[in-house]
Amino acid sequence: MFSSSPHSGLLEKLFQYIDLHQDEFVQTLKEWVSIESDSVQPVPRLRQKLFQMMALAADKLRNLGARVDSVDLGSQQMPDGQSLPIPPILLAELGNDPKKPTVCFYGHLDVQPAQKDDGWLTDPYTLTEVDGKLYGRGATDNKGPVLAWINAVSTFRALQQDLPVNIKLILEGMEEAGSVALEELVKREKDHFFSSVDYIVISDNLWLSQRKPALTYGTRGNCYFTVEVKCRDQDFHSGTFGGILNEPMADLVTLLGSLVDSSGHILIPGIYDQMAPITEEEKTMYENIDMDLEEYQNINQVEKFLFDTKEELLMHLWRYPSLSIHGIEGAFDEPGTKTVIPGRVLGKFSIRLVPTMTPSVVEKQVTQHLEAVFSKRNSFNKMAVSMVLGLHPWTANIHDTQYLAAQRAIKTVFEVDPDMIRDGSTIPIAKIFQAITQKSVMMLPLGAVDDGEHSQNEKINRWNYIQGSKLFAAFFLELSKQHSGHQMPSSVF
Amino acid sequence: MFSSSPHSGLLEKLFQYIDLHQDEFVQTLKEWVSIESDSVQPVPRLRQKLFQMMALAADKLRNLGARVDSVDLGSQQMPDGQSLPIPPILLAELGNDPKKPTVCFYGHLDVQPAQKDDGWLTDPYTLTEVDGKLYGRGATDNKGPVLAWINAVSTFRALQQDLPVNIKLILEGMEEAGSVALEELVKREKDHFFSSVDYIVISDNLWLSQRKPALTYGTRGNCYFTVEVKCRDQDFHSGTFGGILNEPMADLVTLLGSLVDSSGHILIPGIYDQMAPITEEEKTMYENIDMDLEEYQNINQVEKFLFDTKEELLMHLWRYPSLSIHGIEGAFDEPGTKTVIPGRVLGKFSIRLVPTMTPSVVEKQVTQHLEAVFSKRNSFNKMAVSMVLGLHPWTANIHDTQYLAAQRAIKTVFEVDPDMIRDGSTIPIAKIFQAITQKSVMMLPLGAVDDGEHSQNEKINRWNYIQGSKLFAAFFLELSKQHSGHQMPSSVF
Repeated sequence: MFSSSPHSGLLEKLFQYIDLHQDEFVQTLKEWVSIESDSVQPVPRLRQKLFQMMALAADKLRNLGARVDSVDLGSQQMPDGQSLPIPPILLAELGNDPKKPTVCFYGHLDVQPAQKDDGWLTDPYTLTEVDGKLYGRGATDNKGPVLAWINAVSTFRALQQDLPVNIKLILEGMEEAGSVALEELVKREKDHFFSSVDYIVISDNLWLSQRKPALTYGTRGNCYFTVEVKCRDQDFHSGTFGGILNEPMADLVTLLGSLVDSSGHILIPGIYDQMAPITEEEKTMYENIDMDLEEYQNINQVEKFLFDTKEELLMHLWRYPSLSIHGIEGAFDEPGTKTVIPGRVLGKFSIRLVPTMTPSVVEKQVTQHLEAVFSKRNSFNKMAVSMVLGLHPWTANIHDTQYLAAQRAIKTVFEVDPDMIRDGSTIPIAKIFQAITQKSVMMLPLGAVDDGEHSQNEKINRWNYIQGSKLFAAFFLELSKQHSGHQMPSSVF
Repeated sequence: MFSSSPHSGLLEKLFQYIDLHQDEFVQTLKEWVSIESDSVQPVPRLRQKLFQMMALAADKLRNLGARVDSVDLGSQQMPDGQSLPIPPILLAELGNDPKKPTVCFYGHLDVQPAQKDDGWLTDPYTLTEVDGKLYGRGATDNKGPVLAWINAVSTFRALQQDLPVNIKLILEGMEEAGSVALEELVKREKDHFFSSVDYIVISDNLWLSQRKPALTYGTRGNCYFTVEVKCRDQDFHSGTFGGILNEPMADLVTLLGSLVDSSGHILIPGIYDQMAPITEEEKTMYENIDMDLEEYQNINQVEKFLFDTKEELLMHLWRYPSLSIHGIEGAFDEPGTKTVIPGRVLGKFSIRLVPTMTPSVVEKQVTQHLEAVFSKRNSFNKMAVSMVLGLHPWTANIHDTQYLAAQRAIKTVFEVDPDMIRDGSTIPIAKIFQAITQKSVMMLPLGAVDDGEHSQNEKINRWNYIQGSKLFAAFFLELSKQHSGHQMPSSVF
C-alpha cells in the first residue's frame, strides 16, 4: 500500500519500529498517567504534581535532543485569597533547518479530577489494559496524543533518520483550568518561538467513530457562568426556618430552570441572533459524514438523543450553541438526609458558542435574562451573575496545506479518507493560536469516540495510540512533501 | 408571691436550697460536659465516651436512691461494614406510691460533634462561664436540662422531703444519631416501664425568647424525598454531548423548581387539603406570644423574612407545612469550572408536616406531582422519586393536667405566663411516646433562644439552668396537686 509514496521504504521501517516498540510506548504512557496532574482542584498538593509532570516531560524531550525552555509563569491568586504556583509551559524545539517546514505541536499534561470512588473500575492513576483498552485519567486527554507525537519523533531518532520537518512543541499544564497564562505567553512568543513556525497541530479531541479517523476544522467556544444567590453566609436548619425565608435554593433552581427547555433550545432572549447562517455547501459536508445514529446511541449508553437524523444531531453538536447546567456549590451534596437550608449557593452552567457568537454579547444577554427572572421573584436574597470564562469558537480553512498532508497521511496509515468534522467542545487554544500567530492551525485527533474524556473510565485504545504514533510519522513526511510543492512557486519568484 | 400556694413554705425552702447549691449543680454539669459523648461520628473512641457518659448518669441516679436499669442494646452495622456498640438506654425509677402520679422525663446525653477549630471561643468540652453564660457542647442540648430534673429531685432528697410524685427517667445516648433502638425499646416497655406512667416530659428544645419561658405543644413532622434523574451512570463532557441530550440537571432543576413558589407556597396539588383548619382560639394564642420581629431578623442575620407580622411568621414556622430544597448529589459541587454534564443526579428536598397531614398521603401527592411535571417534559431520562424518611407531626392537648401544672409552676418561678409555642422542627420522640404509650406528652424547654444547640459556642445561661431546676421542683408539687384534683371524681366512682 505504500508503493505510491517515495517514502514507502522509510515508512515501512518507521511503522515496523513503532510496532516492535509499542510496549515501551505504553510503559511511558503508564508513567505519565501515574502522576495525578489535576489542575482543576486548586490545592497545593496537586500543583506539586503538575510541576512534577512538566519536569518529567521536559526530561523526555531533552533526552530526544530537543532544546527545552521551561517558562516560569509565577503564581495565581485564587478567589479564596490563596496564592497557587502555575506550572511552567514547555517550549521545545528540535531542528531549525530553514529548508524544512516547521510544525509545532500543542498539547497539555494536566487532567480533570478523578477518584476511584467516582465510579472507576480501575485506579484512575494506574494505566490498566483490558481488551486492548488502556484505562487511566489523561490516557486520551491529552497525555496519549502528546506521547504519540514524541513517539513519532523518537522513532526517526532511533532509526537515525533525518527528521523531514523542524519540530516544535508547546506543552502546558493548565488546560483543564482554562489555560491560565498561556495566551499571554503565545502573545509574548509571537515573534520569537512562533516566528519560524509554519503549522500548528493540536491533537486534543476525538474521532466521531470508534474506528474511522477524522480531521477537525472547527470548535465551539464556551462561556462559563456562575450565579450566586445569597441570604446569609451561614446555613439554616429547615425545621427552625423552613416556611419563613426566601430560600436561596428555591431561587436558584428557578434561575437555572429558565435557561433551556426540554428540547435543548436555549431560552435566553437574542442568543441565536449572532449565529452564522447555515450554507448549502456546509450541509453537503454533514451528509457525507459516516455515522450510524443508533450505534452512536448504543456506544454512549444513551437511550435516545434529542434528534433523529445524523445531520441534525451533528449540527446541534457543532453548529448550534448549547447550554449545560453543571451543578451547585454550597448546597448539600453528600449522601444522607441533612435537613439544611443552604444560606448561599452558587449555580454553574455554560454555553457553547458557535461562529459568529462572541463572549461579550453572550455575557450581556445571560446577565440581563437572569436579572429579569430574579426580579420577577421579588426575593429578598441577593443575586450575582459572573462569567468566569469566555472562550471564542474557532473554524479553519480546510484547503490549507497541512490539512491536505494530514488527509494523505491518514489515508496511508488507516486506508480511508477521514471524516471532516468539527468538535462541539472548546479547545480555546486553536482560536488563540490562529488569532495571535496568524498561522495555519489544524486539529488532528487520535482518540476514538468512546474514550470518555473528562469522564469515569477514560481510556485510549492501544491501537489508536500506536497507529497515532505512525500517523504523526507519516504526517511529517507528507507535510515536508506538500510544503515544498506548495512553497515551490514562491521560491521561484 | 408564694402566699396563695399550700406548698409555699416548702417551695421557699426548695428554692433556697437550689440557690445555695447552684455552684455544685454547675460543677456537675461541668463534669458531664467534659465527656465528649458525640454519637454522630461513628468511631469506636467516641462510642466508649458514650458508654462512660451513660455509666456516670446511672451512678448519679443510683446515688439518689433510684433503681436504674441499664438496657444493653447490642451493636449497629454501619454502611461501611464496621460494627459499633450502641450505648445503653437508662430506665430509672424513684418511688412507686400508687397514690401519687408518676411522671417520666425523657432526655439524651449524647451531643453533636464539636471542635475548638470549628469556631468555638472556648474548649467545647470544658464548661466555661462568661457573663453568666455556661459555654460547652451539650450544655443546653441536652445535659443541662437532664441535670436540672435531677437537681430538682436531689433537692427534695437533701431536704428530706417526700417527693410528691413518682419519678421515672428514660435517658438515651443516640438522639443525635437518630435515636437508634429507642422506638423499639419504648414498644417493648409499653406494658412494663411505661404502664404506671401518667405523664411524659421532654425538655429538649428552646424558648422563643431570651428571657421568657415557653411551653411547647406541637412539632412539625418531616417527609424527606429524593428524586433521581438518570440518563446513564457515567457523566458526559458538555462539549461532546451538549445540545443533543436531555440533560438530567435540566430535568432536575425543572422538577425542583415546580415544588414551591417564591412566597414559600407549596405548589404540590392537594398538599394543604390535609392541614387542620386554623381556629379562632388558636389565633389568640399567637397574638399573645411575646416576639420582636425586627430583633428576630437581626439575631438571625436575615435581611427580611417572608412575613411582616409576628402571627404570620410563627404560623408559617409551626402551623403551615414548608418545603425546603437541600441540595443535589451527583452534580458538580466543588470549586472550579468543570464542564461536565452529570449523567445521574439526585435532588433532595423535604416537607415539614403539620396536623393532620400524614406521610403516606404526602408521599403519594409528591410522587404524582413530580411524575406529572416530568411527563410533560417528554424527556428520555428515567425519574425515580423516593420518600426516605416519613415522620409524623405532633400536637398535644394543652388542657391536659400536666400543661396546667407546668403553666402554674412557670408562673411561680418566673412570674410570667409562658409563651404557648410549637416547634417548627421535628422531634420524633414526642410523637413516638404519644403514639406508643398513649400517655400525655409535654415539652417543657429550659434553654433560651440564643443557646446555639448544634452550633458553635453552645451554652446554657446559669440563670436558666438554676431557675430550670426550681421549675421542675415546683412542677412536681403542682402536678401532684392538679393530678389529685383531676383524679378525685374518678376515685369517687
